[in-house]
Amino acid sequence: MGTTESAPLAVEDIRADFPILEREFDGTPLVYLDNAATSQTPDQVVDAIVEYYRTYNSNVHRGIHQLSQEASIAYEEAHDRVAEFIGAESREEIVFTKNTTESMNLVAYAWGLNELGPGDEVVLTEMEHHASLVTWQQVAKRTGATVKFVRVDDEGYLDMDHARELITDDTEMVSVVHISNTLGTINPVADLADLAHDHDAYMFVDGAQSVPTRPVDVGEIDADFLAFSGHKMCGPTGIGVLYGKEPILDAMQPYLYGGDMIRKVTFEESTWNELPWKFEAGTPNICQGIALAEAIDYLEDIGMDRVQAHEEQLAEYAYDRLSEFEDIEIYGPPGDDRGGLVAFNLDAVHAHDTSEILNEFAVAVRAGDHCTQPLHDKLGAPASARASFYIYNTREEVDKLVEALADARELFA
Amino acid sequence: MGTTESAPLAVEDIRADFPILEREFDGTPLVYLDNAATSQTPDQVVDAIVEYYRTYNSNVHRGIHQLSQEASIAYEEAHDRVAEFIGAESREEIVFTKNTTESMNLVAYAWGLNELGPGDEVVLTEMEHHASLVTWQQVAKRTGATVKFVRVDDEGYLDMDHARELITDDTEMVSVVHISNTLGTINPVADLADLAHDHDAYMFVDGAQSVPTRPVDVGEIDADFLAFSGHKMCGPTGIGVLYGKEPILDAMQPYLYGGDMIRKVTFEESTWNELPWKFEAGTPNICQGIALAEAIDYLEDIGMDRVQAHEEQLAEYAYDRLSEFEDIEIYGPPGDDRGGLVAFNLDAVHAHDTSEILNEFAVAVRAGDHCTQPLHDKLGAPASARASFYIYNTREEVDKLVEALADARELFA
Repeated sequence: MGTTESAPLAVEDIRADFPILEREFDGTPLVYLDNAATSQTPDQVVDAIVEYYRTYNSNVHRGIHQLSQEASIAYEEAHDRVAEFIGAESREEIVFTKNTTESMNLVAYAWGLNELGPGDEVVLTEMEHHASLVTWQQVAKRTGATVKFVRVDDEGYLDMDHARELITDDTEMVSVVHISNTLGTINPVADLADLAHDHDAYMFVDGAQSVPTRPVDVGEIDADFLAFSGHKMCGPTGIGVLYGKEPILDAMQPYLYGGDMIRKVTFEESTWNELPWKFEAGTPNICQGIALAEAIDYLEDIGMDRVQAHEEQLAEYAYDRLSEFEDIEIYGPPGDDRGGLVAFNLDAVHAHDTSEILNEFAVAVRAGDHCTQPLHDKLGAPASARASFYIYNTREEVDKLVEALADARELFA
Repeated sequence: MGTTESAPLAVEDIRADFPILEREFDGTPLVYLDNAATSQTPDQVVDAIVEYYRTYNSNVHRGIHQLSQEASIAYEEAHDRVAEFIGAESREEIVFTKNTTESMNLVAYAWGLNELGPGDEVVLTEMEHHASLVTWQQVAKRTGATVKFVRVDDEGYLDMDHARELITDDTEMVSVVHISNTLGTINPVADLADLAHDHDAYMFVDGAQSVPTRPVDVGEIDADFLAFSGHKMCGPTGIGVLYGKEPILDAMQPYLYGGDMIRKVTFEESTWNELPWKFEAGTPNICQGIALAEAIDYLEDIGMDRVQAHEEQLAEYAYDRLSEFEDIEIYGPPGDDRGGLVAFNLDAVHAHDTSEILNEFAVAVRAGDHCTQPLHDKLGAPASARASFYIYNTREEVDKLVEALADARELFA
């Protein structure tokens, strides 16, 4: 794209890499604003997938033949690529999973089930995604541990006084969403990591919305764990990542059992492979891992700083334009202090109806609880409509959202 | 391909669908005989993947917009397609996982951890894959249950008298590999299911090698669970299947926690979604599930009876030709009674060296313990070389294997 670091994105060039964006419904061009659920996939990544299956598809790790060597190298180097992308120290710290949810469950099962007990506390926030909230809730029930929730204030920020109150020497794990998928809040995860470490607790960062949209460095945050998914960052479905600090992963029990994660097996007992393979049982999502590395190349060619700037500009513009409606409630912090998404409700219209009418204008937004039911309960709305932006979205598409929304409101007036 | 059910495969037509098979190494055409590890992927499946990302990629289930509807329908219908393929009653019985290993761990975690205890027994066989062997071994350690192993006799068959002895009213689960990935043995899983059911135990069939290579009907076997992977049957990496009888899955606790698998969540507690989504937490491997359905279409266009006949003919031919070597040990049953793979060792050559030299002739076989270390211990070999066949392999390729092996033997003579 040949522009400097600070220049805006060449969105038209980027859009050319995403043929799906050329779709039209009844002659109306698609406006895809559901990126917090899944981003679209550029041709470069699709081409990498095709190349894999057409030229070097093979099982990895133990194969001596040429195809297996090629696939193994690409798959292992994909771990290196991810490590570099998030500032991890080595591939040993990068476990490929199937999605962010599995990354969280891995830690909950392999660490939580073994280490938590009565008297231990896990501190979450009221804005956690079900992937974190339900997982720790259920592991706590099983182990006798307690889950506590840092309050979200009326503006959609974490109550940090409350966080300082909740995080104590009883705390074993603090798990916080980096960017709320409902409020757009950008949480101070480095400060929370400091708090956690002051009390010898681990810090788990849910990076599902942050890693795809801004530079995230595990060293700067001092996160003990970080989870995210490929399909929200130009990668394929079926691939997630768990980052963990090497000594912590090393000390953890395995999670899934099977081939490749073992060293020696007898009928009576087993010992485990080295990191990260200890946590990758069975034939892994080989092609998906390789394609994720390609997606990272694609994003870094653009520059994550510029991706972040683009996200924030679109979010602010959308926040401002949506604020023109008098009968709208927008959830979360002000437009100039949020990630690239805006969830809202029109007073008289259910979010599902809003989404349905927007769809008639070929505007794709998500309607529902966005896997944050307890937060929605607190917001007093069973659901919300959410527009979320990515590298290929434009201000004109935000305008189309606003225009379609005006029509939707008319219909229900 | 337009041939009748009983006719042999039109292998040359089939090969045209797999461009990877045209690869040459130093001018020598690839002979790909590592299909028990991973099959190759036909253009039809790759095209389905490309179509997904280029035209209707979207997150599923909760989306109202057009793309999400299209992806949801395709993803859900992929479950129907798999159900029909293995004779399941409905999509409720089909859970998409990331691989066979995860399918087994799902049952071990969600059923085993909750239901097993001291005095309970899990019956496996000496030829189980690590995915089953290590998983049940570790769940038994955690729950206080006991694992017992049905003996494999000198010919590579299960000792069914021993099975009848081991399976008792203390048995809660019988888990057996349908076709051994090392011996090629085709196990009498329907008989074992009867035995299990006589003692009110569940029957888990590891179908990783059988479902891709022959007609498998869960009703005929009366299996309670069946697991297999997409990447061994013309599908993509990153997709596995767990079949379970609906009442059993329905009564089971969830496995992974997160979005989509819940019904109602509060800060205090959660309830679960209906089948099969209860077991598919987070954004699933959408594209991979859809591509698996395409792979099934591809295989059924050929006809699974014919796939089986082709497999068995090649295995028998390979067995016979390999038997020409005086200094070879071939593991498992006779050539006319085995699945489509042959594992062996030349007396004077380590399996890894065999594989390495075969690779110089562009013949790809797998060398190692094939994730059956305890079985290899019993066979008295740390590793074996394994040639495994699929729909695109030919007798001429078996000849090339034999010729290359003759040269390998010369080198080490």
